[in-house]
This record gives sequence, C-alpha cells and structure tokens, in this order.
Amino acid sequence: MKNQENLAKIRHTLAHLLAAAVLEIYPNTKNTIGPAIDTGFYYDFEFETPITEDDLKKIYKKMLQILPNWTGFTHKEVSPSEVREYFKNNPYKLELIDEILEKGEKITLYTSGNFTDLCRGGHSENPNKDIAKDSWKLDRIAGAYWRGDEKNKMLTRIYGLAFESEDALKDYKNQKEEAQKRDHKKLGHELDLFTFSELVGPGLPLWTPKGTLVRNLLDDFVWSLRKEYGYEKVEIPHITKKDLYEKSGHWEKFKDELFRIQTREGHEFAMKPMNCPHHTQIYARRMWSYRDLPQKYANTTTCYRDEQSGELAGLSRVRAFAQDDAHVFCRLSQIKEEVLNIWDIIHKFYGVFGFSLIVRLSTHDPKQMNKYLGSEETWQKSEKMLAEVLKEKDIEYIDGLGEAAFYGPKLDFMAKDSLGREWQIATIQLDMNMPERFDLFCINEKNEQERIVMIHAAIMGSIERFLAILIEHTAGIFPLWLSPIQIKILPISEKQNDKALEIHNELLKNDIRSEIDLENNSLGKKIRTVKQTKIPYYIVIGEKETESNKFGLENRSGDKEEGLDIDKIVEKLIGEIKTKS
Amino acid sequence: MKNQENLAKIRHTLAHLLAAAVLEIYPNTKNTIGPAIDTGFYYDFEFETPITEDDLKKIYKKMLQILPNWTGFTHKEVSPSEVREYFKNNPYKLELIDEILEKGEKITLYTSGNFTDLCRGGHSENPNKDIAKDSWKLDRIAGAYWRGDEKNKMLTRIYGLAFESEDALKDYKNQKEEAQKRDHKKLGHELDLFTFSELVGPGLPLWTPKGTLVRNLLDDFVWSLRKEYGYEKVEIPHITKKDLYEKSGHWEKFKDELFRIQTREGHEFAMKPMNCPHHTQIYARRMWSYRDLPQKYANTTTCYRDEQSGELAGLSRVRAFAQDDAHVFCRLSQIKEEVLNIWDIIHKFYGVFGFSLIVRLSTHDPKQMNKYLGSEETWQKSEKMLAEVLKEKDIEYIDGLGEAAFYGPKLDFMAKDSLGREWQIATIQLDMNMPERFDLFCINEKNEQERIVMIHAAIMGSIERFLAILIEHTAGIFPLWLSPIQIKILPISEKQNDKALEIHNELLKNDIRSEIDLENNSLGKKIRTVKQTKIPYYIVIGEKETESNKFGLENRSGDKEEGLDIDKIVEKLIGEIKTKS
Repeated sequence: MKNQENLAKIRHTLAHLLAAAVLEIYPNTKNTIGPAIDTGFYYDFEFETPITEDDLKKIYKKMLQILPNWTGFTHKEVSPSEVREYFKNNPYKLELIDEILEKGEKITLYTSGNFTDLCRGGHSENPNKDIAKDSWKLDRIAGAYWRGDEKNKMLTRIYGLAFESEDALKDYKNQKEEAQKRDHKKLGHELDLFTFSELVGPGLPLWTPKGTLVRNLLDDFVWSLRKEYGYEKVEIPHITKKDLYEKSGHWEKFKDELFRIQTREGHEFAMKPMNCPHHTQIYARRMWSYRDLPQKYANTTTCYRDEQSGELAGLSRVRAFAQDDAHVFCRLSQIKEEVLNIWDIIHKFYGVFGFSLIVRLSTHDPKQMNKYLGSEETWQKSEKMLAEVLKEKDIEYIDGLGEAAFYGPKLDFMAKDSLGREWQIATIQLDMNMPERFDLFCINEKNEQERIVMIHAAIMGSIERFLAILIEHTAGIFPLWLSPIQIKILPISEKQNDKALEIHNELLKNDIRSEIDLENNSLGKKIRTVKQTKIPYYIVIGEKETESNKFGLENRSGDKEEGLDIDKIVEKLIGEIKTKS
Repeated sequence: MKNQENLAKIRHTLAHLLAAAVLEIYPNTKNTIGPAIDTGFYYDFEFETPITEDDLKKIYKKMLQILPNWTGFTHKEVSPSEVREYFKNNPYKLELIDEILEKGEKITLYTSGNFTDLCRGGHSENPNKDIAKDSWKLDRIAGAYWRGDEKNKMLTRIYGLAFESEDALKDYKNQKEEAQKRDHKKLGHELDLFTFSELVGPGLPLWTPKGTLVRNLLDDFVWSLRKEYGYEKVEIPHITKKDLYEKSGHWEKFKDELFRIQTREGHEFAMKPMNCPHHTQIYARRMWSYRDLPQKYANTTTCYRDEQSGELAGLSRVRAFAQDDAHVFCRLSQIKEEVLNIWDIIHKFYGVFGFSLIVRLSTHDPKQMNKYLGSEETWQKSEKMLAEVLKEKDIEYIDGLGEAAFYGPKLDFMAKDSLGREWQIATIQLDMNMPERFDLFCINEKNEQERIVMIHAAIMGSIERFLAILIEHTAGIFPLWLSPIQIKILPISEKQNDKALEIHNELLKNDIRSEIDLENNSLGKKIRTVKQTKIPYYIVIGEKETESNKFGLENRSGDKEEGLDIDKIVEKLIGEIKTKS
C-alpha cells in the first residue's frame, strides 16, 4: 500500500515535470490538468500549433534536463485575485479556480524548479532522488476533450508510463506487447474464427465453421457439467411484447439499450437484453408442488443490446452475444445446495483452462436499505447462505459490502489470465425480486402457496466475451479438445498421398478432426503452415512410414513420439480429448 | 378426374338446394353466393334475424323435402333489365350483375324446382337421382364478410359436407375427428412440450424442457445426416442493418413481414426473416480457390416474421420459427452431386417417421421470361441438372411448369401423413441470383473469377411447423428415440423403492431417459399415467422382480417381454434408440 502511494506521488510529480518541459519548449501553450493514472500519468494541453509523436523525444529530453533542479516542492495558499492574475491567460485554469471557490475550498499553488501549478499536493519529496532512472518514459499522444465533454475544445493529451523501477517498466512494456500479439481481434481473424460484415453492421459477429465449432464445444462443455446437476434445456424467442419488461422492471431499467420493434399492427416489442423474464414464463406455465422443485432451466441464447457504435470492440463489446444462461427456481431452503452446485460447475469449467479464480461476496449495505427490495431479515437470511457456502469452501474472498444487486446478494468471480490480467466472469445471484413481480410460487407441505427464489447463474457469461478472454489467455493455442483442427497429415510427396488419406480417414472415423495437406509444397512449408495455424499435432508421411505403418506424432512445441501405429495414435488423442488436458 | 367433376357438380347443386330451403323457411333472407368447396359447399346469406346452429336441422329437413322435386335444371339467358327486376330486392345480386355486365359477359339464370339463381351452370343432371342418400349433411355456420372484405357487411355462411357416398362422408368425418384428437395444440399442451405467455405475446412459443429436448433431438438427427456429407455449422446474429436486405432484395420483397428496429443512433435494422443473405457474408469473408468448393454451411437459427395476429395458429403459423437451414456454395458443375446429397438427407430423415414423399420439379415458364432472372440458357442448364437427379432416382414426379422461384428452379417435397393429408415440407432450390447480387465467386483453374451458385436446403423447414405435423402424424406417440421420457419404473409399493431406484439409475447411467414413480398410488393408477403420457416402456417392480433381478419390459401397446435382466433391457433399448426404430 505504501509503495502504491509513493508510486502515485511519483506519477503526479512527473505530470508536473511534463508540463514544465512543454511550457519551456512551447511557451504559448495552455496547460490544463495532469493526473496520475494506473500506468503512469498524463497532461492535457492546448498547443498553439499541433505537435506529433516525434516531438515527444524533445520533450522527454527537456524533462531529463529539468529534473536535477527539482529537489523538492514548495506550496502556498493564495488569494482569489492573486491566482486569477497568475493564470490570467489560461481560461482552463480560470474555470478550475472558479469551481474551487464555488465549493468554498482554499487555493494552493505548488512549485518545483521554475514551474508552478494549481494543485492540491501529493508529490514526491525529492523528485530528483525519488524518481528511479529509466523507470518512466513518454508513451504517446491522443486527442481529449476538455473535461471529457465532446461539446468542448479538443486538447492534446500526452501520456507517460511510470513504474517503481526500470525493470517494472520493462515488464509492463513486455506485457503490453504480448497482449497486442494476443489481441483476439487479430488472432480471431488469423485463426478464421469469426468475421464482421459492413452490410450486417458493427457489433454483430458472424461465426465461421471453425469459430462455430469452438463456440459449440465450449457450450457443450458447460452443458455436460450442468447436466450432472439435473439442469434441463429450455428455449425462448428473442423478442417479447413490452408487457413482459414492464412487469419485470427492465423496460424502465434498460430503456436505452433495448432494441425496440414496432409491429405492423402497432404493438411495441423489444429484443431481449437478458433471459430471466422469459424463463419465469416457462416456470409459470403450470402449478408446482414443492416436490417438483428445484426446476433448473439452462438456455444458451443470443441477447441483444443497443450499444453505441463508439463503444463496440471486437468480441469484448458487441450488440449480439450468446449467454450460457441458467435459472434455478427453488425454495429458500434449497439455495445453499444449488449455489454449491453452481460453484462446482464454475470451478470445473475455469479449472480446465488454467484460470485462477477470485471470489467476492457482494452484500447489501444495511445503512442504505432504500436501495434494495425486501426486508433486512430476508437479506440477512440469504447472505448467510452465501457466507455458509464460502465457509464450507474455506477460501479467502473479497468483502463486497454494498456491492449486491438491488434484488439480492451475489457471488462474483474474477479470473486471472496468463498475463496476470483480471476479468470479471461468472456470477451467482440470488433473486427475490423477480419471483415477487411474476408471482412465482410452489404449493408447500401445508398445501399453501409459498413464494420461491430464483438463482441466476451464467458460467461463461457471454460466449463472445469469454472467447475474447480465452484467445488472449492462450494466445490462440487452444487445447486439443477445443482446436478446430486437431491434427494435420503431411505426405512428403504425391507418392504418399494414398497412405496419408488412409490415416486421415481413420482419424476422422474416430471423430478426430483431421486435415490433410495434399498441396504440391515442400515439407518445410507444410510444417510452417501447421505451426502458423496452431494445429496441435501433425504426422509426416514419407516412404519409411508408408512401408512400416509406424508414424511419428509431433506436437506444436516440437515434441515427437516415434514409431506409433495408427491405433496407438487414435488412443492417445482420444484420451487427451476426453480428459481435456 | 371424371368423378371429381361429378362431385363438384353435386356440391354446387347442394348449394342451390340449401339456398332454396333457406328462402322457403326465411323468405326475407338475401342469398348471395354459394360455391362448391373441397369438402362440400357453402352459401352466404344476409338473414333478417340471426340463426344458430340449431336451425340447421330445420333447414336440412327442408332440403330433404325439396330434393325429390329437383329432377333437373333449366336455364335461360336474360336481359339486364329483366334480371335486375328479378333481383331488385337483393343488392348483392345486383352488384354481381353489374360486374358480369362490365366484363361484357352474358347473364344466365338456372332453375330447379321453385328456385332460380344467378349462375354459370355446372350442376348434376338429375339431383334427386345423382345425390346419394346420406352422402351429405349441413356442417356448421360461420361469419363471413361479403366478398371477404372486412369493410363490408358480415354475412352468415352455412357450410355443408358432401362426398360421393355415405361411406366417403363417414370416412371424412372420422378423419376430421381423428385430426381433432391429434390437434398439436391440444397434444402439445398435454405432453408439456411448449407454452404461450400473454406477456411475451402471441405467435412466440416458449419451449419447456421436454419440448426443447424433442427439438434438439430432431435437429441433432438432421445434423448427423448433414455431417456425413461434409456440412459445417455456422452461426449468425438475428438482426442486420437494412443495407444487407437492400442488396439482397429482401427489403422490398419482405417489406410487410419484416420486424424493423430503429437504433438509438437512428440506424434502421431488421430481424432476419431468412438466413441466406447473412450466410453470403460468411462465404464472402475471404477468397476461395475452386479446390475449396463446395462450402456447405448449416445453421439452425430462429427467423422472425411480423405475421398478423389473426393468422397465427399454434406452431403451424408463428412469428418466431427455427429454420434448420443450409446453404451450399458451389460451382455449376457441382450442383448435381450436391442436390443428390440433399435428396438423400431428406429421404433418410422423413423415412424414419414413415412419411411417404411426393416430389415436384418446379421449372420456369419459357413464355414468361420477364418473371425470372438470368438467361434461358442458364435456366435450361440448371433445370437439366435437377431433371438428371430425378432420372437417376427413377421416380414419378409432378411437373411444376412455371412453379420455379424467380431466381431458379427447385425440387419441392410433399409429405403424406398418417391421416392422408399432404404437407409441403423440404425444398431444394437453385439460386443464381444471390451470388450475382453479392458478387460471390471462386478462382477457377484458369486463375479467373468464376461466378458460383447457391443451393438452399432446409430439411424440416421450420422445426415448429414440422413438429406440429409430426405430433398430428404420430398422435403424440413419438418413437422411442424421440420420446422425452423413454421408460418409467413403477415400484408396486414402498418396499420396492430401493430396487426401483437402482434400476432407474442404471438406465440413466446408460443415457436412457428414465423416470421413476415414487408416489404413493396404486399400480393401476401408475400404469394409467404412463399410458396417458405416452411413455414408450415401463417396468413394474414387485417382490418377485426384487428377488430374482429379472424384469418384465412392457410397451405402450401392451406387449411384454418377461424375465429380462437389466443389461438385456439396456441393450435392447439402446439398440432401438440407435436405429431410430
């Protein structure tokens, strides 16, 4: 924590230093604001004439020149007239000063070397000593509206990177480079998993045969886990009359993101942004005895949200996404067991991919009961059940006081990927609101109507978003079971084509996704293609193999097992596929 | 053909007889028109005071009274003034007369007994002799707008049934009764396959666990057939920018049935009424060598059409329907083989359900080339390919001259169900239009761009509609492989619950969909429930079975195999499931 604070001070100090350097080189520039951020700092300027990224070198050099003179900060409180006089040529600062005065706060100026800025403090004590050599650099420039409002003037933002040490900066740069190499938009195209069409529109991915296969394998995996816990599949339309969402409350809550439809008869419909209201209507089709509960409905189905074009990004933010959704309709007394089941499904699923999971218990804030539906007692009861699950699992978890949904507490899961990045993924939510609104009940042992509870539980969340994470996590090197092509057969010359086809067909017959390369290319080129497309295994078929009927099985890391007959190869691959290893 | 003509004459004559009877009983009634129809006849009247179905008896009796006096028809051509005078109190007839005169046609009156009507002829020569005893009856009354236009007055339509003989009428009545018993809306509810919700809206079925299972089993079956022919699954969003459909021509053609969406940014989108335009965009994502063709994309996905509320009916006519769609992108030279493949898939699929298929070759009409896209030469070439398929298959087919789609010829398949009703089901369509509009090509042997062809091929068409047909065809008695519950285990008393559970779990472990009845009911009641819910098999577990570990396997027709051990039962059921027998 101490280190984080120090780092923030250094980053803030570097923002000042950046402004000082810019003003020395371009005296007519108007400096505005410059905070510390997660990876360093930035400062926004209004330049007299635009600068380019090439100019960053010059500015960096100037910062290095100034730094030795910065051995501390002094500050003083100033009167409104004094500070207005000081910044009289800078309308941005004058606007900030007005705001500070309006709030009745004091105005302070901080100075180091020859540079003075309007500031609240929080700098390193001795910049020249505290800022480690080569632990920072200027990164890039970007356009930024004054105060983030597109109605205001566009300013020039200079970004800098800053870390504790030269090594930490290097690590960050490496990680960023690696992340760029793993960018799912780039890899998704190279692996031919999905495509976008100008005619269909942005945010609406079209899935190629390979991408569809991967999606279905993932979805089938989730289903195989759910099936063991007694889930059943249901299916629903992608639209509904407005009435459903008025009753559920989504019409009001999701107003902006709803794709709305006006029918030819003048009725108002909407595309579904989630599935719970539809699923309540399947539950509500008949009366249920307590003996029939829980009812567990699973449904992988596309949801639609009218996202703004500017916010769309590859598969991470789309307008159409498939949710691997499930809803458990159960009694209060069944919550714990059902949550434990979902917990297991989540851990089995993410475990296979080597994600480590972090859990947060998101509870209500008893001081703000007006934010929630239901009584304090019901909240305590249901939170206790989630806490019991955590206790039974005996793991560390994050305390998310006040992070509950308005209808109930939840368990949120975050996955850490191979680059150390954290992603919010699955959640388990208790919902006492929807059953109330849709009057869902069962007939209990006393022959009375008993209000039931809903548990919402998506495992991947959105297949699109999960796939974006998975592609970047694995750098597109999918495990065997998930690879669209699992093995490639490479005859050395045309003479081996028959044997190659025989092997290829034998693999296909055993449901192994084999591909054969019959092009008239050199073996070297064939192997390079295999590696580029990240196919897990390949078999080279030459004269020796054709005669002996023994083959070498080579994987993408270069490991090779020699002298295997085809049955052995099939057995080995099927074993690996089954265990998802 | 001759018989059909005679029957039409009899039906037409009975319409006259009906009008004669009505006018004798209710002299102030205005009779309008009364044609022969498929199952008999009707006549539309404006009654002074409304009648009810109870009145049909009286009218029928009057018809029987009049009939002996009807031994022939006389007719005469009349002048406009004469006929206007004759019908001066009947504005409907006057309207018809004006229309006939406008077309420059002659006006004839036909008379039998005391009844004269405006008519073009086509009656039986001697009604009293020709109309077989008890071969006809009055059926029901219904409201009908004059000339079918809802802006006109509502008239009373009286329907009659009429067939060649008393037996034929009985057969029809039995078939109709049977069809009512088999009504998929009724059975779908009883079998708990689907439901509708007022809040979600009409024409938008929600699929229960059992219904979803049946849908998926059907879809998986189609997929297993397609997979053998090298199809690959793809996936697409349910919406698109208007641009896609402007380019494909669907925006204009499907205008009224499109669910349209206005996005928050003001763009116009639509829900897809079919999948071909989306699929072209998956094909168009990259360049293809002729060696890569055919590309065969399969995709079961929901389509949406803004049908009018009044036209919706159960699963037969819905607003959301899942198409088991596929598109083959291939060269002209590959059409025949691909069509043969689809032909096989269709026959394998429908064969399993015992539907017999009738084929129609729907070709272009060379005299109306303005109705079609493309040259006469291209049409002849592609029709020749379809004809070759039919020749190779050596079957009788219906000649559908002029029945082609505007973009190409097709093979249409009709299925005959167990009640003898015919349903239009699968089609195979050649499409030379869409590839042109979307500029789809491959690079051929000469390294030139070559225009490709699309083949559209849905097997079930819409899963909803197919399921409606299948439910009525089977009366809900699904074959074992398609039954949501395949076997039920019935312990005679609580003492056998453990053994029953053991058997139940053994079946589940072998992926047989078993259910166990642990209710505290008599065996008789348990068996009745099994039969009501049409479960294919059940096993009764009593003391004898518990001790001997040998069981009786009984099916819903009452056949029973005694003394089987559980392995034998599993083997038998799995065999039956695999062969879909």
